[in-house]
Amino acid sequence: MSNSIKVKIGVRNPVIQAPMAGGVTTNALVSAVSNQGGLGMIGAGYMSPDALFAQIREMKQMTKRPFGVNIFVPGPFSADKESIEIVKSKLRPLYEAYELNIADIVLPAEAEMKSIYEEQLGVIVKEKVPVCSFTFGLPSEETVQTLKQADITVIGTVTTVEEAKIAESTGVDAIVVQGSEAGGHRGSFLSGQEEPLIGLMALLPQVADEVDVPLIAAGGIMDRRGLEAATCLGAEMVQMGTAFLVTKESGAHPAHKTAIVSSREDTALLTTSFSGKAARGIANDYIKAMEQELNILPYPLLNALTGPLRKAAKTAGNKDHQALWSGQGTRLAKQQSVAMLIDQLIKE
Amino acid sequence: MSNSIKVKIGVRNPVIQAPMAGGVTTNALVSAVSNQGGLGMIGAGYMSPDALFAQIREMKQMTKRPFGVNIFVPGPFSADKESIEIVKSKLRPLYEAYELNIADIVLPAEAEMKSIYEEQLGVIVKEKVPVCSFTFGLPSEETVQTLKQADITVIGTVTTVEEAKIAESTGVDAIVVQGSEAGGHRGSFLSGQEEPLIGLMALLPQVADEVDVPLIAAGGIMDRRGLEAATCLGAEMVQMGTAFLVTKESGAHPAHKTAIVSSREDTALLTTSFSGKAARGIANDYIKAMEQELNILPYPLLNALTGPLRKAAKTAGNKDHQALWSGQGTRLAKQQSVAMLIDQLIKE
Repeated sequence: MSNSIKVKIGVRNPVIQAPMAGGVTTNALVSAVSNQGGLGMIGAGYMSPDALFAQIREMKQMTKRPFGVNIFVPGPFSADKESIEIVKSKLRPLYEAYELNIADIVLPAEAEMKSIYEEQLGVIVKEKVPVCSFTFGLPSEETVQTLKQADITVIGTVTTVEEAKIAESTGVDAIVVQGSEAGGHRGSFLSGQEEPLIGLMALLPQVADEVDVPLIAAGGIMDRRGLEAATCLGAEMVQMGTAFLVTKESGAHPAHKTAIVSSREDTALLTTSFSGKAARGIANDYIKAMEQELNILPYPLLNALTGPLRKAAKTAGNKDHQALWSGQGTRLAKQQSVAMLIDQLIKE
Repeated sequence: MSNSIKVKIGVRNPVIQAPMAGGVTTNALVSAVSNQGGLGMIGAGYMSPDALFAQIREMKQMTKRPFGVNIFVPGPFSADKESIEIVKSKLRPLYEAYELNIADIVLPAEAEMKSIYEEQLGVIVKEKVPVCSFTFGLPSEETVQTLKQADITVIGTVTTVEEAKIAESTGVDAIVVQGSEAGGHRGSFLSGQEEPLIGLMALLPQVADEVDVPLIAAGGIMDRRGLEAATCLGAEMVQMGTAFLVTKESGAHPAHKTAIVSSREDTALLTTSFSGKAARGIANDYIKAMEQELNILPYPLLNALTGPLRKAAKTAGNKDHQALWSGQGTRLAKQQSVAMLIDQLIKE
C-alpha cells in the first residue's frame, strides 16, 4: 500500500498508544508500546520544552523503534477578572484542604502558550522524533512542511467530517478520528453551538468517504473486536488510551487505574470542570460539585487554576479530586502488561 | 447456530428496519423490507389497538415473510398543573400560527396508557405477529411467556450493560443494543443522573461479554461497513432506522428526508423538547427555541401537547416545527429504494 500510515511510520502492529498528557505517558509505557511493535506516544501537551527534550533523549536509549510526541495547538483565550475571582473562591476550600494557597497561582498568557508551542516544535524537529501529532487544533501548513522536511510523520486529530477536511488541507500524513466514546479531552477545534459527540460507528465511514489520507480510529477501542470493527469502518490503525492507561507500565495513579476497572461504562462522563475544555472521565465528587460552577473560565485558565489541586490529590492518593480520564470502554479495561494487551489485540 | 436470532425469526438477511413510530413505518415500507429478506417492523408506539390491527391485517396481504411490531412499555408519570400551564403558554403562539387551539388537547392518564399497551399486546398475540419488540422499558416475565407461547419472538431494547442484564433476565429472545449514534428516541429505562449515551464501539463488546442472548446493533449503521463492524463487535443482526427512513417506500415527510440527506453528522442533536424523552433529530427552529423551555414536563404529557403541532407542521410541509428524527449517519443517507439499500448492505 503506497498510502499506508503503518508502513510510513514503520511499525509492525496497527496500534498507537494515545498521547495522554499529565504523567501517564512515562517512558516505561511509551517504550514498552514501541518495543512491542506499536507506536508509543509522549503526551507532551503540558510539558516544558526542557522536560520534553529530556524525555525524548531518554526514550532514544530505551527503544530503537519509532515513537511519537503529541502537543496542543494553542488558541486565543481571555477572561475577565471577576470570573477568575469567582472560580478562585469556589476552589479555595479544596485548596485549603490540601494546605495549598490558590493566590500563588500564576495564570498563563496567550503569548506564553504560543512560545511554549514553538519551542516544543523546535525540540521535536531538532530531535527528529519519528511522529508528531496535534490536538486542540491543527498545525499551520508551514509547520506541517517543516516537520515533513525533517522526515517527521505528521498526524492531526479531528472529531467531525468538517474538521477532517480541514486537517487534510494542511497536508498531514494521517488523521486521528476521535469518536464520542473517547476518554480525556475532546479534540474538537471548530467552534459550534455544541461539542460534537459523534460515535465512531457513524463518524468513521463518513470521514472515510470525504478524505483520502489514512485514518486512525480513537474512542472506546479496547481489544481485537474494536480493532477489527474500526478496520471495517475505514480506519487503517487504532489509537487506544484507556486500555494503555490501566497497564502496569503506565504512569497513571493506581487509584485512577482502579477507578476505571471498577467503573460502569455509563459513569465515564463529559466534564469541563477540570480544564475548561470538554473531557471524559469517571464521575467523582469534584465533578459532581464543580460541573455547574466553573464553566465560566476557558482553557487553559481553568486548567492552570485546578492543576496544583489535581497534583496534590494525586500525591495524596485521593481519587475524588483527581481527573480520572477514561473512555466508555471501562468494563473491558484490564490491569495487564503492555505485551499482553498488544498480543491479544493482534493475535489471529 | 442454535442460538441464532436470524434463524429463529426466519429471515435471509441480518437486517431489521427500526420501528419508527409516527407515520414512517407504513406497510409500503415494512412489507418492502420483509419482501427483500429483512425484517420489517411496524412502529406502533403511538397507534391505537384498532389501527394496529388494521395495519397487521393489511401487512399479511402484502407479504408472506416475517414482520414485527414495536410497542412502548408505559411507565409512571405525573406533573403539576402549573408546569402544564407554563408549557401551554410557551406553545400557544405556535398553535395559533397553525390555527389550532391548545386548549382542545386532552392529556393522557397513566391508567389509559397502560390499558392501550395491554390492548396492543392482545392484538399482537391474537394476530400471532412473528416478532414483537419493546422500547422505553421491558415487558414483564409473564408477558414474555405469553408472547413466546404464541410463537412470537420477543426483543427488548437497551442502552447500557445494566439494562441488557435486566432484559436477559425477563427471558427475551434477543436484545437491541442502541448506541448513542441512534436517531429518534433513546431506549433507556433505568433512571440515572444522566441519559446514558454510549457509542456502539464501546457498548456492544461490553454487552456481549455480559449476556448470552443474541444482540442486534442499532445506531449510526448505514451500510455494509456498519453491518460488518457490528458483527466484529458481537452483534448478529443490525437494526437500521435513518437509512430506511429516507428510502422511497418510507412514510416520512419529504421535507424530513431532505433535511436528513442535506445535514451534517453533527447537526443530529439530542432533544427532549418534542416528547419529554431524549431523542435525536436534526436541529431546527423549534428545538432551538424550546430546548430550555419545555423540559419541565415528562413523557407522554409533553408528547401529547406537541402532537397536533407536529402533525400540522407536517401537513404544511414545514420542517421547522416537525420532529426531524435522525441518527448521526446523515451523510450516508440515500434516497433510494429499499431493494437497493438491502442489496448494497449484503452483497459480497
